[in-house]
Amino acid sequence: MANESVFTYGAPQLKFGSGAADEIGFDLAQYGARRVLVVTDAGVAATGGPQRIADAMKAYGIAAAVFDGVHVEPTDASLRQAVEHARETGPYDAYVAVGGGSSIDTAKAVDLLTTNEGDLADYLNPPVGAGRAPERPLLPLVAVPTTTGTGAESTTVCVLDVLDLRVKTGISHPRMRPVLAVVDPELTMSQPAGVTASAGMDILCHALESYTARPYDAYERKRPEQRVPYCGANPVSDMWAEKALSLLSRSFRRAVRDGDDREARTEMALAATFAGLGFGNAGVHIPHANAYPIAGRVKDFRPDGYPDGEPMVPHGMSVALTAPEAFRFTFEACPGRHVRAAELLDPGMDRPDDAAEHLPRAVLRLMRDIGMPDGIGGVGYGEGDIPGLVEGTMRQQRLLAIAPRPADEDAVAGIFQRSLRLW
Amino acid sequence: MANESVFTYGAPQLKFGSGAADEIGFDLAQYGARRVLVVTDAGVAATGGPQRIADAMKAYGIAAAVFDGVHVEPTDASLRQAVEHARETGPYDAYVAVGGGSSIDTAKAVDLLTTNEGDLADYLNPPVGAGRAPERPLLPLVAVPTTTGTGAESTTVCVLDVLDLRVKTGISHPRMRPVLAVVDPELTMSQPAGVTASAGMDILCHALESYTARPYDAYERKRPEQRVPYCGANPVSDMWAEKALSLLSRSFRRAVRDGDDREARTEMALAATFAGLGFGNAGVHIPHANAYPIAGRVKDFRPDGYPDGEPMVPHGMSVALTAPEAFRFTFEACPGRHVRAAELLDPGMDRPDDAAEHLPRAVLRLMRDIGMPDGIGGVGYGEGDIPGLVEGTMRQQRLLAIAPRPADEDAVAGIFQRSLRLW
Repeated sequence: MANESVFTYGAPQLKFGSGAADEIGFDLAQYGARRVLVVTDAGVAATGGPQRIADAMKAYGIAAAVFDGVHVEPTDASLRQAVEHARETGPYDAYVAVGGGSSIDTAKAVDLLTTNEGDLADYLNPPVGAGRAPERPLLPLVAVPTTTGTGAESTTVCVLDVLDLRVKTGISHPRMRPVLAVVDPELTMSQPAGVTASAGMDILCHALESYTARPYDAYERKRPEQRVPYCGANPVSDMWAEKALSLLSRSFRRAVRDGDDREARTEMALAATFAGLGFGNAGVHIPHANAYPIAGRVKDFRPDGYPDGEPMVPHGMSVALTAPEAFRFTFEACPGRHVRAAELLDPGMDRPDDAAEHLPRAVLRLMRDIGMPDGIGGVGYGEGDIPGLVEGTMRQQRLLAIAPRPADEDAVAGIFQRSLRLW
Repeated sequence: MANESVFTYGAPQLKFGSGAADEIGFDLAQYGARRVLVVTDAGVAATGGPQRIADAMKAYGIAAAVFDGVHVEPTDASLRQAVEHARETGPYDAYVAVGGGSSIDTAKAVDLLTTNEGDLADYLNPPVGAGRAPERPLLPLVAVPTTTGTGAESTTVCVLDVLDLRVKTGISHPRMRPVLAVVDPELTMSQPAGVTASAGMDILCHALESYTARPYDAYERKRPEQRVPYCGANPVSDMWAEKALSLLSRSFRRAVRDGDDREARTEMALAATFAGLGFGNAGVHIPHANAYPIAGRVKDFRPDGYPDGEPMVPHGMSVALTAPEAFRFTFEACPGRHVRAAELLDPGMDRPDDAAEHLPRAVLRLMRDIGMPDGIGGVGYGEGDIPGLVEGTMRQQRLLAIAPRPADEDAVAGIFQRSLRLW
């Protein structure tokens, strides 16, 4: 086999800082936009932020409508409804997503299906869907994250639950990447501590998973049409990941402890952006694969800081719960990177003699400090749930292929088993 | 005054690695391109590279013509000629620049003036031109650098000599940034040692000047329409600069010594790209401002490794010659950054007691090792030339505004004076 020698790197343009969200009308005008749909969820809409952003666009000659029907954790039904809304009230010439990953991902699907023929199912990743590629360019999508976590503003992916099949899957294509990310830390100031903690664990795992991902040059040489947005660890994604880890080491605990700490909030927003720019190209692996069934098969866990209602394991939490064990498992594939990541994340920590323990220990120390549950047992799973969880993970072959060593059913079962209790 | 709180970051998409240049047809097809003009200079054309790249596009249904009339160091006349060629042989639906900064900048001007109304002079930066902004989107421009230096693939700028006025100026607008940079280290393997040395000094100064640039939040708060691509040092440009310095510290001397050292060539290509992504947003300052008159007022200096013919001071060399003294001058504005840059560039160097000497010494050590001339005296300037050089530098107020401390005529004269001989 000839090894890959090429890596690719794509990213939205970035506007970062306090007050950046007030300028979106100007940026939209640069794309020639006149009629814009702002896509958000009811919770974010209730803060008034999306309407303020829409109103501010008027000064630049832009008419903006707000759609606040995004479902937190989008489903095929909720995406279809959003697309329908855009078709009925459109045509628009640009989209603006204001919110967490759910709003940004919903806007990606709306953009795709109002610019290209076909049904949602045509575009879903195989084997669930037909994996069709858009033939026509999408409209400009500006992403305005209000949580410091998902990095959805940087990625080419839309993640959704297919209700009938009870499976989480996605759509992935380079054209789905937002053209501009507007990151305004002021929008994150109201995030409750529990949300900051979970979303921050998502940032951390983006950085750690992309940093320990199978390197791009360990794959077989691809033809250009075979390239995927997630190409494995590479010099660019490594740099973003390292920098995100340093920012997290300084500001994560502070931002959870004191949500009004403006400096910590700004650094968390920067860390989320940086980690997104990294994993948006390198990819993520085992903890994210495990997160699909952990979130999807939730029983009656209800986390602090999230709206009352349906039981849920927040995305970042679902990723975090098996991370320490996943990194214990991946250690042998690239020990140096695991050790370096632990140093960046927790420079002051006592180092166990066994280098394989550095990163799991650094992650565990952080999880305890910010109030994560004690393993998958802490969100209601027991020994008997493991086969079902493993089955769910094994469906995420697209992510497992990015792990630095092969993770088969036994390996994944072992990781779940050892993650029932973490401390 | 309210301080700036927002920074912006723009970049082309990137495809990096050995063989990347063979795939350009695929990438162009993604933009819907069918008829493409490849823009290059005669020297690069003589290597056969641009024609090979054009031929490879056929497999993707793209008809490509090669224009090899780029003038090394573009002039208003050479740009007009290139635009005329594109108008006569077009319309095209994308441009590909293959070469150094001259080819990439020429393609930017061709793109601008075949998509937007008006004459070149309308778009030149004031006070030379009218500083008009393009009203319409440009066509996709793919930049394929064949020298490891300019970073023109990452920037929004086209630099040119206006012959009648004997002045170097530019055009700068976010729409001029290439959409995709294809960086294939194989294309740089044939670069002579003298070119590697000069181009590498350009990389180094991009990294050092953007790292020591006036920080974005030290400027007055701007309205969105006042924002410029060069927004000052910021967390993103800092990261690229630091990484570029580390790569240079490992590979610069090696790439000059042995042009066939593939690893060193690859790291230099990466360093050029990274430094370009940094300074393409932060900006550069005194050494680049001084480089304009040093190159523009050349007497009879003829460097090794460049084609015989007109006397010239290569761009990177012209930037380098006053860099040690410029950084001695800027030290007091941000001592920590100067010390840190020296550490990254030359980790093994003996540190003088005076911290202000660290960075000048690291740069000087490198310049001697790679065969740079001994100051502006080494390229033919004497004491009597200094007033003319200062006058040329003072015209570059756009760059001087990015310096971390004000550089008036006396300061610049002192820098030139102390740069007559460097060792």
